[in-house]
Amino acid sequence: MIKTVVKDLYRNQENFKDQTIQITGWIRTLRDSKTIGFMELNDGTFFKSVQVVFEDTLDNFKEITKLPISSSVLVEGEFVPTPEMKQPFEIKATKIVVEGLSDTDYPIQKKRHTLEYLRTIAHLRPRANAFSAVFRVRSLASYALHKFFQDKGFVYVHTPIITGSDTEGAGEMFRVTSMDLNKLPKTEDGKVDDSADFFGKETNLTVSGQLNVESFALAFRNVYTFGPTFRAENSNTARHASEFWMIEPEVAFAELPDIMDLGEEMVKYVIDYVFEHAPEEMAFFNSFIDKTLIERLQNALESDFGRVTYSEAVELLKNSGKEFEYPVEWGTDLQTEHERYLSEEIYKRPVFVTDYPKEIKAFYMRANEDGKTVAATDLLVPGIGELIGGSQREEREEVLANRIKELGMSEEDYWWYLELRKYGSTKHSGYGIGFERLVMYLTGMKNIRDVIPFPRTPGNAEF
Amino acid sequence: MIKTVVKDLYRNQENFKDQTIQITGWIRTLRDSKTIGFMELNDGTFFKSVQVVFEDTLDNFKEITKLPISSSVLVEGEFVPTPEMKQPFEIKATKIVVEGLSDTDYPIQKKRHTLEYLRTIAHLRPRANAFSAVFRVRSLASYALHKFFQDKGFVYVHTPIITGSDTEGAGEMFRVTSMDLNKLPKTEDGKVDDSADFFGKETNLTVSGQLNVESFALAFRNVYTFGPTFRAENSNTARHASEFWMIEPEVAFAELPDIMDLGEEMVKYVIDYVFEHAPEEMAFFNSFIDKTLIERLQNALESDFGRVTYSEAVELLKNSGKEFEYPVEWGTDLQTEHERYLSEEIYKRPVFVTDYPKEIKAFYMRANEDGKTVAATDLLVPGIGELIGGSQREEREEVLANRIKELGMSEEDYWWYLELRKYGSTKHSGYGIGFERLVMYLTGMKNIRDVIPFPRTPGNAEF
Repeated sequence: MIKTVVKDLYRNQENFKDQTIQITGWIRTLRDSKTIGFMELNDGTFFKSVQVVFEDTLDNFKEITKLPISSSVLVEGEFVPTPEMKQPFEIKATKIVVEGLSDTDYPIQKKRHTLEYLRTIAHLRPRANAFSAVFRVRSLASYALHKFFQDKGFVYVHTPIITGSDTEGAGEMFRVTSMDLNKLPKTEDGKVDDSADFFGKETNLTVSGQLNVESFALAFRNVYTFGPTFRAENSNTARHASEFWMIEPEVAFAELPDIMDLGEEMVKYVIDYVFEHAPEEMAFFNSFIDKTLIERLQNALESDFGRVTYSEAVELLKNSGKEFEYPVEWGTDLQTEHERYLSEEIYKRPVFVTDYPKEIKAFYMRANEDGKTVAATDLLVPGIGELIGGSQREEREEVLANRIKELGMSEEDYWWYLELRKYGSTKHSGYGIGFERLVMYLTGMKNIRDVIPFPRTPGNAEF
Repeated sequence: MIKTVVKDLYRNQENFKDQTIQITGWIRTLRDSKTIGFMELNDGTFFKSVQVVFEDTLDNFKEITKLPISSSVLVEGEFVPTPEMKQPFEIKATKIVVEGLSDTDYPIQKKRHTLEYLRTIAHLRPRANAFSAVFRVRSLASYALHKFFQDKGFVYVHTPIITGSDTEGAGEMFRVTSMDLNKLPKTEDGKVDDSADFFGKETNLTVSGQLNVESFALAFRNVYTFGPTFRAENSNTARHASEFWMIEPEVAFAELPDIMDLGEEMVKYVIDYVFEHAPEEMAFFNSFIDKTLIERLQNALESDFGRVTYSEAVELLKNSGKEFEYPVEWGTDLQTEHERYLSEEIYKRPVFVTDYPKEIKAFYMRANEDGKTVAATDLLVPGIGELIGGSQREEREEVLANRIKELGMSEEDYWWYLELRKYGSTKHSGYGIGFERLVMYLTGMKNIRDVIPFPRTPGNAEF
């Protein structure tokens, strides 16, 4: 008898022909006539379930027919190829042992549940088809990113989560404290005494690991982060979560076009990886979530991503004849509607927009010769809008220090960041990609809450 | 001319013989006589530097000889094998371009600096040999763990960082809030109104993803987490950090010995991986950090890990004749001195201790038949002490609910965790491994602050 798992049965069917096997798993569906029963058993290793056939020759036939779905069982039986049937094989059970009896009020019944309902049972929803597919693809995409960067010799850096600085020089951050809020220590002027806090000062949850990882790029040349980041923004949209994961590669001696090449290669690599490793899940998404998904991803895979400057993009949008909710004007940020129109209608593929006005971009982006724009780039993709945001970093100490002053930021807070420009500064560039947005792009899911295991949004930190 | 990186030069020397190449990097050392100069150039892709030889036939010979170390340069020249020399090859420069001039007060000079001093310049220390080695190994070990689990079909789960619950039912946690501490909303009785906070209640930074990931194990069978965890403990030791990363595999249908096998295989896999992918770094550690490192790791690789019950271990320690600072008594937790003695002196290899008294272990561990112990295990390794802590989880709903009541915990807080036992419960087991401790084990580094890019400890959240 071979102890095995469902994935092996599907992937290596020829090995199991007429063998006696043993599997364990959870009952997805169950039906019977008087003398024969059929059970779909899923063991979590594979998207598809396996059909188990059992007859009244089993001692506990009656008991089995009455099992509530989601009960866990151990099945022994014969692997029988069934080339004439819908499923390629089935298991003819010789023994079924109940391991865990489920209550009959199991909240995921055969009927289709809404995604909203399933969010309220986040501890059970990975057992539902859609979430089984989403979270397996999320895992595969994570690994594909690691593999992509590691194969190229990039060093993975765990940048700090608790931080005393604010990367973007803006943005609402979560405070981290070990002080008892009901007994806050005060200074003489009646203010909270932050110096009495755990780290001796005010600390927050990071919004980006970029500044930290730059210091590693100037040591290891090719580095990346992959970790959680946080925004305390009170916006309840389908695209925003308070806690999300981000990947931030950073490359020394690289200029803007170098990291655009890297980003394009990375996106294609991940698409290719999930196509190869999750064909059943991708087919499911294409049938039940978004019927244009595979076509769109295939198109990205086969196309050369477009490249256009912000100034050219503004002209293209203005001349498109399309009426937008927000007007397009040089100097203002592109809205999602503009980003999607550019990639979906004008380019019909992913497109890098470059050289944005400096006023709408972060302080660390490298000033272009024109004095008006910076060496920034966003990658816009059909169905999503912005997927990647990156830039060449300002490597000139004086230019950077002036920009920090100009924006009224504190030079002192950035002493070490400025020192990176003092000791062996080099050109360097990098980008950030919101991991959840990538998973939405790969799966066709439309709400960020449905691609995060236990999402955190305003008013919601359940589980 | 071939644009390349130092790692390629070392790994594929035969390809470059007598070729003209171009590299970029940072000057580590520089010396010259009147007509010839020698530069050690490191480009971050490889632990070792490359020797660049340049002569006064270069226009800018004088300028180059005066460059401060850590300056960044572009070098073109001929790759010349030097089998008779210490280094296997050198670059005979035909052109050297200065990219970034470093200040002369660069804080990492040729002389040996203390690890303590280097901690104060965490933004520059990855350029020092020891940290270059540590952080490359840290990256490789991260990837090895992902590869190990992914190759086995495990699903990677990003469990939440911000949480409303306290996994261990104990432990000091960091509060996360978006409220202005100087203007806290109050309830009628004058207490802070947590319901006015961002998530509508009190939230904290996670101490473990285990409870959350169990729900995924009961869907996907084989899962793991790899993410940051936090402890607001005010302990300033070489082994504790306030922010650290943890890996937590969880396996459905698995009993305690199954995850011990998994843990043993995992530890060996990671050791083997860093030996293979970072031989230069490992040789460095063995020479300069811990002269018994490679022997100890090799021994772990080649041995079958020991297995002993807690009760037997207590007897072994009592009868060892060794005088410990803390006495050994059945019912009390093993101290690091006991753990190390067990693995270093008695077993002389890694050893799993199992079946600890229930009073010193967490509520979710499966009760053994004896009524006194639980199906827990710690892996103890020479040089470190505890590396892994795991258990079979209590899968019996009633037993778990009773234990929660017994400990005075709130059943309500664990409603969803209990539901996992109500709907298709199965045996399941898992463990946690502190990633920094693993990196210390792999590198021989003795202070956790030296294996974290930007460590957070009481009073310290710099950078």
